[in-house]
Amino acid sequence: MIETEAQARAADAADPLRNFRDRFVLPDGVIYLDGNSLGPLPRATRERLDAALRHEWGEGLIRSWNDADWIAAPARVGGKIARLIGAAPNEVVAADSTSVNLFKLLSAAVRARPGRGVILTEAGNFPTDLYIAQGVAESIPGAEVRALPREEVFDAIDSDVAVVMLTHVHYKTAARWDMAEITARAHAAGALMLWDLSHSAGAVAVDLRACDADLAVGCGYKYLNGGPGAPAFLFVAQPLQDGLSSPLSGWMGHASAFDFSDDYQPADGIQRFLCGTPPVLGLTALEVGVDIALEADMADLARKSAALWNLFAARIDVRLAGYGFELISPRDPAARGSHISLSHPEGYRIMQALIARGVIGDFRDPDVLRFGLTPLYLGHEDVWRAVEILHSVMRDEAWRKQAERAPGRVT
Amino acid sequence: MIETEAQARAADAADPLRNFRDRFVLPDGVIYLDGNSLGPLPRATRERLDAALRHEWGEGLIRSWNDADWIAAPARVGGKIARLIGAAPNEVVAADSTSVNLFKLLSAAVRARPGRGVILTEAGNFPTDLYIAQGVAESIPGAEVRALPREEVFDAIDSDVAVVMLTHVHYKTAARWDMAEITARAHAAGALMLWDLSHSAGAVAVDLRACDADLAVGCGYKYLNGGPGAPAFLFVAQPLQDGLSSPLSGWMGHASAFDFSDDYQPADGIQRFLCGTPPVLGLTALEVGVDIALEADMADLARKSAALWNLFAARIDVRLAGYGFELISPRDPAARGSHISLSHPEGYRIMQALIARGVIGDFRDPDVLRFGLTPLYLGHEDVWRAVEILHSVMRDEAWRKQAERAPGRVT
Repeated sequence: MIETEAQARAADAADPLRNFRDRFVLPDGVIYLDGNSLGPLPRATRERLDAALRHEWGEGLIRSWNDADWIAAPARVGGKIARLIGAAPNEVVAADSTSVNLFKLLSAAVRARPGRGVILTEAGNFPTDLYIAQGVAESIPGAEVRALPREEVFDAIDSDVAVVMLTHVHYKTAARWDMAEITARAHAAGALMLWDLSHSAGAVAVDLRACDADLAVGCGYKYLNGGPGAPAFLFVAQPLQDGLSSPLSGWMGHASAFDFSDDYQPADGIQRFLCGTPPVLGLTALEVGVDIALEADMADLARKSAALWNLFAARIDVRLAGYGFELISPRDPAARGSHISLSHPEGYRIMQALIARGVIGDFRDPDVLRFGLTPLYLGHEDVWRAVEILHSVMRDEAWRKQAERAPGRVT
Repeated sequence: MIETEAQARAADAADPLRNFRDRFVLPDGVIYLDGNSLGPLPRATRERLDAALRHEWGEGLIRSWNDADWIAAPARVGGKIARLIGAAPNEVVAADSTSVNLFKLLSAAVRARPGRGVILTEAGNFPTDLYIAQGVAESIPGAEVRALPREEVFDAIDSDVAVVMLTHVHYKTAARWDMAEITARAHAAGALMLWDLSHSAGAVAVDLRACDADLAVGCGYKYLNGGPGAPAFLFVAQPLQDGLSSPLSGWMGHASAFDFSDDYQPADGIQRFLCGTPPVLGLTALEVGVDIALEADMADLARKSAALWNLFAARIDVRLAGYGFELISPRDPAARGSHISLSHPEGYRIMQALIARGVIGDFRDPDVLRFGLTPLYLGHEDVWRAVEILHSVMRDEAWRKQAERAPGRVT
């Protein structure tokens, strides 16, 4: 139990992951608690990307599709991500955005379950998941989205459901679904199960195979540290691959893309879920982030994530009692992800004041302050100091000097 | 009329675009005639991308969505591309891949023309265009793809056609459609017109507004020099925008993405055709290439493209007669793009031998040698020497020493 700042520093000195911090650029004077939204720049990325520009694009030019194996980048990077989420290498590709990948897999799933039209999900799921599901439902006759309150989802998995789509760790509250339990229930009802791992991959333990999951998507720019708008990934369990087809039938998913034939013939296996030409620069940056995550022991990450979280919660209890905050994330480590969220009626202005003092978290409507406690590069001292600074913001009433929220800003 | 290498050099010295060559990395010993497939690295890209890594991602972190205006990058870069293709800034966004953008616009177009199901196109169009059209047709009841020989397309535009989808400049032959003529015919039949500008934008004059075009897509990594797998672009004529809806209803196309509401409400205008989080690193590199193209006078580019092409064709007539080549590109400048294609039964091995001697073109099944004659950074002397080297390959029978084509290689 850490009760002093010195103890927090001692915990960092004993942390088996302590050397990962130096692998990232963390600006002076900043405690960065927003890695759940955009991971920081790995130190190796600049050199790697510059080498790709100079040698692969600049010198190699078109030859680099073969010589630098650009053509295999989606499968290669996907195969590495697979190791972080308990999948086989031939079950994951890195490509497109999370939204586009969701469209591919949801469309394929609904079409694979004729006679069932329901995409079952949680109200308040990450918006793009809901929006894409609505787009899929509108484009398939008889399909519909059923978005229910979280506590009603489990019992609503019935024989009308084609696919259950849930975000493993909730973007706002960090509440984590029991992946094995929900997946088993979906299968018992004859439905497919799709997990959005955007707030899980690289942060909490995920074992898709052990849970017998069918489909998954996830984000490259949060805990995988792939850079702003990094390519996303998708997972399709191997036994399902050849029975599903992506409506986004682009040439990279063709059985023989370079035969340039007129008729689409999907590739065998995971390759059929690719669409257009791979974004090589984005994949290059993403691979650097994934490679670092692969060096860490996943059990160490999960343990440290829980320790940072517990310390943050304990310090809030001690230092912020009476200031009107409410913890909206679950306290049970098995039931939460790697960020912690508080609600406060003045959440927006408090977060602005906190950022002005160097602690970067983010705000989510209507009243949520989110803090990402990423185990790879944050320490116990960071967490200690962040809560002290939040306390100083409240004590000084610094937030009262902040402007109201400007519309249209990314927050 | 250029009849000596000295005259070719003199033409380069008098070329108003001659200074653009130094803006690109062109490796020693290489004559790069594949800019129609992957444009070369602009010299400014390394520094610009490194600054984005260091300052925007590294230092700015999440704040750069506002402070570096990442959030506006699709519209900003799209607005610049608009100037190259005769569109208004609010009619173009840079996003996703050409294939994904085709899916958005083709789906929207077919749904906007109820009672008509035909996507009319050319057999032998670029494969991903055909494949995506097939995917769209399979996902909309009553829709079908009609792919006809080129010479039959015009007369087949009838009242069954929802959308005519053509590639302005053919990827293989460089044959160029008369954009105004076909678009007028499509409108007369009540159909929408979608142009793929992948082999046009930045290379030949395009004036979408003057032609009254409805929809267009195009590629960022060819003549726009945006890098391997660069983001693509899409165009929707302003009056049509609010009447069309993209099935890829991701959060970046939402009217208020950062309200995080549960229901999809498309943004007004071109923004609704965005889907997921923008690929910032790719957009950053693409913008460098687009900025350079904007510095050139489009009339100069078109004039020089024609001059390089005419020189290449004239030198082939002189130097390669009797070697079994056939010119498959149109000789009329108004009826072609900026690459030139020859067929030869041993095309694959000839191209390999040519590449081994430093002239990089590419091969397309079954027998086509393609040479991109990009006016921005190539000169008349490059063209002269390339044909001399091709002559040497044929004279020495160097191609006979090349291996047969290996399956699965990018060619």
